[in-house]
Amino acid sequence: MRISEIGEFGLIDRIKKDTIVKPQDVLLGIGDDCAAYYGTSSDKVALATSDMLVENIHFILSAGSPRQLGKKAMAVNLSDVAAMGGIPRHTLISLGISPDTSVEFIEELAEGIKEEARLYEVNLIGGDTVRSPLGLIINIALIGEVESDLIVKRSTARPGELIMVTGDLGGSAAGLILLLEEKKCSLVPPPLAQEVKSIHLSPTPRLKEGRVMAREKVATSMIDISDGLASDLTQIGKASGVGAMIYAGKVPILPAAKRVGELLGVDPLSLALYGGEDYELLFTTLPEKADSIIKLIKEKLGTKVSIIGEIRDKEQGLKIKNLSGEIVDLQPKGYNHFSSFSTRG
Amino acid sequence: MRISEIGEFGLIDRIKKDTIVKPQDVLLGIGDDCAAYYGTSSDKVALATSDMLVENIHFILSAGSPRQLGKKAMAVNLSDVAAMGGIPRHTLISLGISPDTSVEFIEELAEGIKEEARLYEVNLIGGDTVRSPLGLIINIALIGEVESDLIVKRSTARPGELIMVTGDLGGSAAGLILLLEEKKCSLVPPPLAQEVKSIHLSPTPRLKEGRVMAREKVATSMIDISDGLASDLTQIGKASGVGAMIYAGKVPILPAAKRVGELLGVDPLSLALYGGEDYELLFTTLPEKADSIIKLIKEKLGTKVSIIGEIRDKEQGLKIKNLSGEIVDLQPKGYNHFSSFSTRG
Repeated sequence: MRISEIGEFGLIDRIKKDTIVKPQDVLLGIGDDCAAYYGTSSDKVALATSDMLVENIHFILSAGSPRQLGKKAMAVNLSDVAAMGGIPRHTLISLGISPDTSVEFIEELAEGIKEEARLYEVNLIGGDTVRSPLGLIINIALIGEVESDLIVKRSTARPGELIMVTGDLGGSAAGLILLLEEKKCSLVPPPLAQEVKSIHLSPTPRLKEGRVMAREKVATSMIDISDGLASDLTQIGKASGVGAMIYAGKVPILPAAKRVGELLGVDPLSLALYGGEDYELLFTTLPEKADSIIKLIKEKLGTKVSIIGEIRDKEQGLKIKNLSGEIVDLQPKGYNHFSSFSTRG
Repeated sequence: MRISEIGEFGLIDRIKKDTIVKPQDVLLGIGDDCAAYYGTSSDKVALATSDMLVENIHFILSAGSPRQLGKKAMAVNLSDVAAMGGIPRHTLISLGISPDTSVEFIEELAEGIKEEARLYEVNLIGGDTVRSPLGLIINIALIGEVESDLIVKRSTARPGELIMVTGDLGGSAAGLILLLEEKKCSLVPPPLAQEVKSIHLSPTPRLKEGRVMAREKVATSMIDISDGLASDLTQIGKASGVGAMIYAGKVPILPAAKRVGELLGVDPLSLALYGGEDYELLFTTLPEKADSIIKLIKEKLGTKVSIIGEIRDKEQGLKIKNLSGEIVDLQPKGYNHFSSFSTRG
């Protein structure tokens, strides 16, 4: 059987048996944004996450600068720590590099990684540099921590809770289309194209927002939007054993993504639902807490938070109420042009 | 400037500036077998290491089974923790996989990783699986721990101390030659060929030995032999700011490696000095402790330990006294056929 037949999640399901040897040391193994294990402190758990980025699968060198690539590689891992409500601490970087790569390129890439790490007070403590005849490979392992009683998992959403999301969606997908299909850029005013490209190339990890959500104990479950709202909500549904209803009219679409979608003849809602790589936080909360969290995050951090749906019983499945009022299944599909089975942690 | 002009260590020297943002949290950054950072306990530090293995650079699929490959990928990381005197705890595995790889291959590979992890009570807590058009990529990040007062670094060897090594050297390099150049196998009796190939494909991390060395406080510095005795001793010399004298006649060469070398017309001493991937522990100790550690490790673990030289002042450089009595510079070269700049952590 080929990997392409069972996909990434099928593969992980097969691998993840018998991975935990000492269960008393592990709070979360495979299956959340980060793993969590007990350190020597009784009130905190350590978080760990790791992402591999492969040239021409997760990035193309021509799309942005090496510095942007480095910053983004770090940001997508920071986003996983954000989705646990945690604080990132230390990172290990492995680089697979073609011998004819220029030193300047790698220095700029490393500068981007370090710049992003510095921004969030993360120490680059080690890693590996090896030869790769096959193009650039970046693997980042990130270690963080969170108080045991504040950690926010994927598996703890309950029916009746509201589904919320930070920021606006669809910008990254709109940017990716323009980065991959250059001739489409002629259909879009340059500043607009620039805006969405930049969102794809330079995402901001929502660490502060995730931390507030954890500290105030408002999020009952949380994930970052890496594969796309539909796909990542499916992960919450699967892990928590629940269904969900999303209201299409309430999904916050980035205005620039909406305009780009319209100009290119791509449904803007699809960009927001299936696009991925927005690195916003998708979380659930008790209905009575929704208004106060919207106000708190807006006041403290200037970040918008929207209510986009609610958690239902598992039997009701994952549904979306379209703009026309029609209720249909929400497909857990992603939008990634490159990849048949790769997803982002 | 191309990477191939400055090599891995030149590249790391350039990258490692400004990597530590919060120095109060970090005991060891880039430059040892593992990084070490302070956890929440005052008497222990956390260890972290990461290795990237790329197909056709660090391994060829035809050389062994996927299970062996998985075990070895884990073992080389465990060896890094052994070289700090530490205990491995948790691991994150990132796999880059071609979509037409068989599920069975990846399952067997994962089984090997897990088998080796189980053997040393390590939890596989997470990772990433992505598509790689570039052949198989395995990145393992390993987290461990060691008591703050027992950690054994590279940078703490002092003139007058003895240089010691566990086990026998050269077996892995002899095995690699036969794995890469199949027609040479006809020159070597099959059981002998099998013995050295198996040493290359299935190394044993010296975790128990490293742990005894740390607990008994006998090692003043330590590194695992991944790149080769000469290259790894150079690392100790560089990190500690010392020179060294190795006695060629005292370097323990694996009998099978000696025979294979003789049959192939390759100097067995070269296999032992420059071969690499033996994953034995190279360490330094005070002269008065040498005999007792040899006895202790032999009695407790059945493992041989040899005195092979002594640490000198930096000004005396790194030297080797040949069998003929001639003293020459010890070249920090490795033997790896595949790689122009890749080394193992």
